[in-house]
Amino acid sequence: MKQLTDIGEDALIARLVRDLESGADVVTGPGDDCAVVDIGHADRYQLLKTDCLVEGVHYLADAEAEKVGWKAIARVVSDFAAMGGTPSQLLVTLVMPGGQSVDYLEQLYRGMQQCAAQFGAVISGGETSSVPTGSAAVISVAGTGWVRKDQLVLRSGGQVGDLVMVTGLLGGSIRGKHLSFTPRVTEAAWLAEYFPLHAMMDLSDGVAKDLPRLATMSGCGFIIREDQVPCSENVDVAAALGDGEDYELLFTIAPDHLERLQSEWGRQFPDLALSVLGELTVAEVGIQSEAGGWEHFTS
Amino acid sequence: MKQLTDIGEDALIARLVRDLESGADVVTGPGDDCAVVDIGHADRYQLLKTDCLVEGVHYLADAEAEKVGWKAIARVVSDFAAMGGTPSQLLVTLVMPGGQSVDYLEQLYRGMQQCAAQFGAVISGGETSSVPTGSAAVISVAGTGWVRKDQLVLRSGGQVGDLVMVTGLLGGSIRGKHLSFTPRVTEAAWLAEYFPLHAMMDLSDGVAKDLPRLATMSGCGFIIREDQVPCSENVDVAAALGDGEDYELLFTIAPDHLERLQSEWGRQFPDLALSVLGELTVAEVGIQSEAGGWEHFTS
Repeated sequence: MKQLTDIGEDALIARLVRDLESGADVVTGPGDDCAVVDIGHADRYQLLKTDCLVEGVHYLADAEAEKVGWKAIARVVSDFAAMGGTPSQLLVTLVMPGGQSVDYLEQLYRGMQQCAAQFGAVISGGETSSVPTGSAAVISVAGTGWVRKDQLVLRSGGQVGDLVMVTGLLGGSIRGKHLSFTPRVTEAAWLAEYFPLHAMMDLSDGVAKDLPRLATMSGCGFIIREDQVPCSENVDVAAALGDGEDYELLFTIAPDHLERLQSEWGRQFPDLALSVLGELTVAEVGIQSEAGGWEHFTS
Repeated sequence: MKQLTDIGEDALIARLVRDLESGADVVTGPGDDCAVVDIGHADRYQLLKTDCLVEGVHYLADAEAEKVGWKAIARVVSDFAAMGGTPSQLLVTLVMPGGQSVDYLEQLYRGMQQCAAQFGAVISGGETSSVPTGSAAVISVAGTGWVRKDQLVLRSGGQVGDLVMVTGLLGGSIRGKHLSFTPRVTEAAWLAEYFPLHAMMDLSDGVAKDLPRLATMSGCGFIIREDQVPCSENVDVAAALGDGEDYELLFTIAPDHLERLQSEWGRQFPDLALSVLGELTVAEVGIQSEAGGWEHFTS
């Protein structure tokens, strides 16, 4: 009998959502960073997202609670950014062993509240449950957000010939950035407002796993130019492409916008790198990087 | 240092949400069955809810997967009903050990889809993660729903002298009902449309735990008349009040509506009991049942 470890996360999700019914008001369902729902507003869609942190998978038991809380919210905020949107309401489900200290949870919530406030979101509900002794803690965060209809960017809009671009430096997030990163909400909103982006997502599992997802949903292949990969300090190209949890923006845009984009980006965000990783190609000639990213269930 | 087991779920939540900032658009935040948000519609509010099932706490590993899936969705649907509302979009976070069979998850999703479809909801997104070996599986479901502004019923609206009423028969859910119950969406919407309910919630932890929550939020005490408690077959009064997971509606209403309510209910829902459990009283003379309900972290 097939187990989760045999098929990997993407194939699992594909099988699970295969028989789901879709609603007339769902603009984009499972498969993108957020679900997109038309709730009858003239100029904006509602975004919906759920996510989780698992102790021992996404953070260690001895990690600083406030940073774990920040990360739990920041991951979801990053998914709203990935659509060109902003977060609004957040709901927190805490699944914790009964022996956990109340102080720890208060610090966890302090970190969550800080991140929510920084990005204009509110924690408006939640749920708590115990777990059996010895089980890992789980923090699940779900949320709603908003995106202007004319600024919505999906994973599926990439076109052959698009440049594949990325913000920031890649790799080595495990050394600390994964607990304290800044979701690129401001940058994504600016990009979506001033440039005709074709496709966008945030980098959670690493370019080597995430770019194929974007390319596949866009019906394209891709080429990465390894000498153009913006590596974090003391990180080689393989790790920069393979490491997860960068939470940078990966997007595609027609090449004739490059000059204006680079020039205006440099003035707007002088401290954040913006790089051309490669380009989208005809599907048949897609060349995938050899580096392995991080995929749940199979690694 | 205080642990979760020392303070109980209600006190924990009170401490965690104490320092949260609220948003101008939040009508009702943490503490009710759902959060209530004003998103600018003329005649309806959006409802938000998150919940979870933990293996070994809310279901056993050998329980039928399809029923576990039904329960995961039905619990959330029941919370929308408790506000007088209906569910719309649902998001599913699966935290599963890598050794779990894909067949199991497909059956789980089948049960979720059946319940969603029966109540007009759509599963529009999700997330998956692994857990370390030996950890319990967790299924977290979050969702959005709608309620007409003039039919919203909170926990906090109860008034001294209100009758405390309950649908169905109480207790013994662990024998099977907890995996296959019908959320009272239809009944709650009918009640909220045709009767001026003061307060409502769904019974998840048992009357002995849940009624004090409703009474406290309404600034009242309560009396339960033990001889009027509608017990499930082979369940005594203590178990009927103390057992969790009934997922029936608990609501309060001024006594002068009782006659019309009983008569119209009997015609509308002839197969579902409707009982007067007791009444709301001045807070100071509140008499609490001796029976202990189920509270996470302390039991």
